[in-house]
Amino acid sequence: MLKSAFTLLVVIGWNSNVFAQLPDPGFEIDRTTAIVITDPQNDFLSPDGVTWGVVGESVTANNTVENLETLFQLAEANGIKVFISPHYYYKHDHSWKFEGALETLMHKITMFDRGDQLSTEGFDGSGADFLERYKKYIDKDFVTVVGPHKVFGPEQNDLSLQLRKQKIDKVILAGMSGNLCVESHLRELLEDGFEVSVVGDATASAIIPGYDGNAAAQTNFRFIASHVYTTKELKEELQK
Amino acid sequence: MLKSAFTLLVVIGWNSNVFAQLPDPGFEIDRTTAIVITDPQNDFLSPDGVTWGVVGESVTANNTVENLETLFQLAEANGIKVFISPHYYYKHDHSWKFEGALETLMHKITMFDRGDQLSTEGFDGSGADFLERYKKYIDKDFVTVVGPHKVFGPEQNDLSLQLRKQKIDKVILAGMSGNLCVESHLRELLEDGFEVSVVGDATASAIIPGYDGNAAAQTNFRFIASHVYTTKELKEELQK
Amino acid sequence: MLKSAFTLLVVIGWNSNVFAQLPDPGFEIDRTTAIVITDPQNDFLSPDGVTWGVVGESVTANNTVENLETLFQLAEANGIKVFISPHYYYKHDHSWKFEGALETLMHKITMFDRGDQLSTEGFDGSGADFLERYKKYIDKDFVTVVGPHKVFGPEQNDLSLQLRKQKIDKVILAGMSGNLCVESHLRELLEDGFEVSVVGDATASAIIPGYDGNAAAQTNFRFIASHVYTTKELKEELQK
Amino acid sequence: MLKSAFTLLVVIGWNSNVFAQLPDPGFEIDRTTAIVITDPQNDFLSPDGVTWGVVGESVTANNTVENLETLFQLAEANGIKVFISPHYYYKHDHSWKFEGALETLMHKITMFDRGDQLSTEGFDGSGADFLERYKKYIDKDFVTVVGPHKVFGPEQNDLSLQLRKQKIDKVILAGMSGNLCVESHLRELLEDGFEVSVVGDATASAIIPGYDGNAAAQTNFRFIASHVYTTKELKEELQK
Repeated sequence: MLKSAFTLLVVIGWNSNVFAQLPDPGFEIDRTTAIVITDPQNDFLSPDGVTWGVVGESVTANNTVENLETLFQLAEANGIKVFISPHYYYKHDHSWKFEGALETLMHKITMFDRGDQLSTEGFDGSGADFLERYKKYIDKDFVTVVGPHKVFGPEQNDLSLQLRKQKIDKVILAGMSGNLCVESHLRELLEDGFEVSVVGDATASAIIPGYDGNAAAQTNFRFIASHVYTTKELKEELQK
Repeated sequence: MLKSAFTLLVVIGWNSNVFAQLPDPGFEIDRTTAIVITDPQNDFLSPDGVTWGVVGESVTANNTVENLETLFQLAEANGIKVFISPHYYYKHDHSWKFEGALETLMHKITMFDRGDQLSTEGFDGSGADFLERYKKYIDKDFVTVVGPHKVFGPEQNDLSLQLRKQKIDKVILAGMSGNLCVESHLRELLEDGFEVSVVGDATASAIIPGYDGNAAAQTNFRFIASHVYTTKELKEELQK
Repeated sequence: MLKSAFTLLVVIGWNSNVFAQLPDPGFEIDRTTAIVITDPQNDFLSPDGVTWGVVGESVTANNTVENLETLFQLAEANGIKVFISPHYYYKHDHSWKFEGALETLMHKITMFDRGDQLSTEGFDGSGADFLERYKKYIDKDFVTVVGPHKVFGPEQNDLSLQLRKQKIDKVILAGMSGNLCVESHLRELLEDGFEVSVVGDATASAIIPGYDGNAAAQTNFRFIASHVYTTKELKEELQK
Repeated sequence: MLKSAFTLLVVIGWNSNVFAQLPDPGFEIDRTTAIVITDPQNDFLSPDGVTWGVVGESVTANNTVENLETLFQLAEANGIKVFISPHYYYKHDHSWKFEGALETLMHKITMFDRGDQLSTEGFDGSGADFLERYKKYIDKDFVTVVGPHKVFGPEQNDLSLQLRKQKIDKVILAGMSGNLCVESHLRELLEDGFEVSVVGDATASAIIPGYDGNAAAQTNFRFIASHVYTTKELKEELQK
């Protein structure tokens, strides 16, 4: 009853050039496509945020703040839904018994802190709040803010469900930080069966001695996504 | 009924030095710890494998083949269970309607190909088979081979369940390739609530013009894991 | 920046009749629809299978064996893809350190046993093999057999991914056993964002003193799914 | 290199009595055990809640409100952590493009409605709020309220992660409603590798003409969980 054996394709002359010509599968924007933005929050994007000392260089070099605003504008102009996956740490998260390196750091510097999900005291303008210039878009109906992720990926929130409940199958991904939350979202959305592209310069990452988070992110975006856009290329694509 | 507001800790004098001193939370090996190895298969680790042209440089530089064998030996000697998460592409996987860049490539070069899960014809010694020198360990009872992952992470297989069913809560991770399957396993195991360390030099990654997969992997391991071991350090730790 | 408060709809005259008139959202079969069948294997559906003593009554009453064959026929005739999610227990699964009631039983009676994923010895015609009369369909290209689930749901296999990679968003669900694997697949597919209907009489369940698994399954199908078909109704729907 | 073939155990004289003697694997409460309660909210448990007309009969018969309070008291007295998985529907959830039967109903009757996660206006005492008598427990530190689930199971929230981050491996489950959220939590926690018991009479379910949700729930709890407690039995167990 076994299926007939699968004849292996003969691969003649394959060599490292195959990788040198890493495929670019491409990405077609259609009515099942949404934009997903991770962590457009003060602690990452404001010079007053707790991580500016290490992400500021990359945010500035990539022009991330402006590029993310362009994404909101392109979405609104083109009838594309935007989903935001934010990061909040609640009081009880500070009692976790183990954490990885960046988790430990984020907790130590009180990044994204908020009392709990039923408390909004002190939230407005805090590091956990959205960057002020994005609020006018986020308040509109084309933007949905899903529940908070708790480590780096959307495994703990309702992002995938909210996308599917709107019949979204394809995602254009951007946000902060590139090699942590954006990349974890990219990987999980892929496993969830979404077709995913990334806007490379609408992300930024921490750069510390010996470890260039932005280079890591851009490398992995290129290896993993269906396509890596620049903001300019995406804009031209949508204006065709 | 809201919980009392959470008072934000006052962070005095925090600056970029915090990141410069990226925490190293550490990892204590105990009886709830297992070793997880991804893709110890010919297509990655044999000079005859279909990806050697691009991963060979990193495999050789990191001494990955020998380091992975050391992990099998250390596990057996110290009563540590090993779980292998392999990669198989079946005939029907070749009819997928969309794929990311590396997925496209892997299918194109017939990497890890196997007819189906009820076929073993032509499997022995194929690119999908385990590296010959590891088989004497894998055949023993301390090693469990879980179902195949299908993209890069363990979301599509039973790795997490098999670990939990053996009361494993902590993972020492290694294997191929570093910035794809190892890193996706790291990220998903973290979201699944495992405490995870990585053996950095028991991984290797593709290096292609403009994109250093190994640098990306080592950077992200350092940011995300509880600790990054060298094989030598792990050996010393277990011999204490 | 908070979104304007959501005004609760005034619900006038709501009472228990609302539930008495439990909504039937309905299900429209289109080109994004597939049929998913769980465990069409001898141990459930053959009088020689290890569970026949307790599921036989329900299999016979529901006409499950014939109804499942009708689903294969309808699928082939109407160009609908079929995905099978099988159940295999490997040797290493028998060393699990804890299990629920039915898991314990399934292991005890060696249900669905198979050596491992690289062994097909003794598989043909075993309790883990597909019912003989279904093999002529399963061997064809419109049927995809995904990896095995390990408890009751598709969380440990690649069912969701395989469906999405074929651009499937809607599922017609059937198979064995109703209140265990079918229902766990229903619940997980729903959380994964699929629109799901069930063919109630193409399932069957264990009935033991004090516990009617079939009644439980049919109740929960009605509460949870978008629509519950009979095989006859589905046939008529497809012949319109 | 295949593992030696697994010899099937000879099962002599197995018959339906095996199921008649459905195993009761048992459950040992230790320091890795927590109590998880789903939806202890007014819309389910208060006579003023929107579902009382259909769940009231079962809530009263099972003595659910008092039994859940006993669980909070037992937890506090015995140093057992409690995790609450609540249900909130936000404004944007009302724009979903498809839903199953009960989802459709819950939205129609504005069950668990709350503006959004950054709004608490009108929340206090609403159908989405916790039952007043439980608040004095929930306000204490032994209780953690995780993010909201969005369909029936914990796939969209951080329950599993929060449990693991506290080194919890075993769960005693209760809450509302039995055959929907409790059962979906039971099934998903099992797939996530937790050892799970249920307190049968600290749940209740909708009973509508032709469909007894409570019978379905109690049947499936018995089939699936490691053990089904009564509140009285759990109390005695903890007082040993």
